[in-house]
Amino acid sequence: MTLTNTYPQDERSKAKRYAKRVTYDKDAVRDIVDAAPILHVSFNAPPIESTEPQFPTILPMLGAMCSGTFTDDEQVIYLHGSSAARLFRLGAGQQESGIPVCIAATLLDGYVLALTPFNHSCNYRSAVIFGYATKVTDTDEMMHAMELITNHLVTDRWTNSRTPPTKSELTATGILRVQIDTASVKIRNGGPHDDKKDLKDEATTSRVWTGVVPVHQVMGEPIASPDNMVSQVPASITTWIEDTNDMRKGHMMESMKE
Amino acid sequence: MTLTNTYPQDERSKAKRYAKRVTYDKDAVRDIVDAAPILHVSFNAPPIESTEPQFPTILPMLGAMCSGTFTDDEQVIYLHGSSAARLFRLGAGQQESGIPVCIAATLLDGYVLALTPFNHSCNYRSAVIFGYATKVTDTDEMMHAMELITNHLVTDRWTNSRTPPTKSELTATGILRVQIDTASVKIRNGGPHDDKKDLKDEATTSRVWTGVVPVHQVMGEPIASPDNMVSQVPASITTWIEDTNDMRKGHMMESMKE
Repeated sequence: MTLTNTYPQDERSKAKRYAKRVTYDKDAVRDIVDAAPILHVSFNAPPIESTEPQFPTILPMLGAMCSGTFTDDEQVIYLHGSSAARLFRLGAGQQESGIPVCIAATLLDGYVLALTPFNHSCNYRSAVIFGYATKVTDTDEMMHAMELITNHLVTDRWTNSRTPPTKSELTATGILRVQIDTASVKIRNGGPHDDKKDLKDEATTSRVWTGVVPVHQVMGEPIASPDNMVSQVPASITTWIEDTNDMRKGHMMESMKE
Repeated sequence: MTLTNTYPQDERSKAKRYAKRVTYDKDAVRDIVDAAPILHVSFNAPPIESTEPQFPTILPMLGAMCSGTFTDDEQVIYLHGSSAARLFRLGAGQQESGIPVCIAATLLDGYVLALTPFNHSCNYRSAVIFGYATKVTDTDEMMHAMELITNHLVTDRWTNSRTPPTKSELTATGILRVQIDTASVKIRNGGPHDDKKDLKDEATTSRVWTGVVPVHQVMGEPIASPDNMVSQVPASITTWIEDTNDMRKGHMMESMKE
């Protein structure tokens, strides 16, 4: 198989505006999915007579991106849910073709304050992915996907919790595999871009502060559950918290540069 | 007009699972939209022959929720974009019926670590809203929506920047108004819920730490743009940063309770 490093562009993913902020690079897509704790997944549920025309639905979900033996080294997204949930029942019912889905991974890096509201913006990293979702039925692949998704949420948590899952846990879990058709990444970095006319207007520039207010997610002190029997928070967790906080702060600082 | 405090449930919004975590309360929907800096908006672009069946698209967008004189006191969502963007051209082309959209506002409050991956979860606040988007054409309503959206991004920024917008800024801006059909809120709070069997298994409980790792967005030090002429960061900005950071931390702490 020939592997290319970019996704093919088509009408769904092609940048219509700010093309210089856009890339179709597979690694860039993966970086953003890897950094996003939550994915937004959109799909068209079967039409309901009372709500024609077709409404899409968005669900916030947990998932992970990977490529490996189960995917012919192609980059796919695994999504996690309940086997009883609508999207997973839909997936099971359309095993051949799959369900068309759109997945968004979005990270906010800063508020960009300009002289005029029109030039205000946000710094962000956004990946938008289009593909077909089918339900994973092979137990080995399911187990593999569950391990990836668990470790994407909390580094190394799979080995640091009670595994493997029981049969009933496996039955109750739904995993969708999304084969990616096309995907794109849009990134905005740096400070505001004001219009020359505003920059020359002293009444405005003397009054309106401009710049960036950076923002990032930060994890706080772990709070043990009443049932917890491990007296000290293990290094696997404190390391994960520190590394993730550092990484997020690093991305935020990086986003300040043009 | 009779105003009720809850959205009508239908097939799109009705909770299929974890019904006790779900509410249709209008104020609850608004609280989450108000707290979310970014909204995810999903819509069906006109079908493209090469990508049948219909793929929905997700876009991360800025917007604001409000009710007032322009909306007959009904709660609506205004979305901001470029008048040249696809969704806004679609909105302009379907002024009578509007475009069916689904909007998600999602806030992550914590990572919930249980004994087994199956019982891992996240604490979150999620609002999912279904409605019809039409393009705002009335200049007064546009101006009103732009003020709301600007102040939703940065408190009081409208009066603290160069306003009103120029004619060409107004022409280049697209505002969609989303009339809400139905909406729901799902909230998960508190610690992990482990199975009795796992809680009795000492080999597991002695090894696996359980609890919550809280997470929230935090804004850092403002960085002035090279063009900025205001020597000190104004109180309107420092107050906004402090208040928002406090509010986000407060939500995070609140989410630790069941």
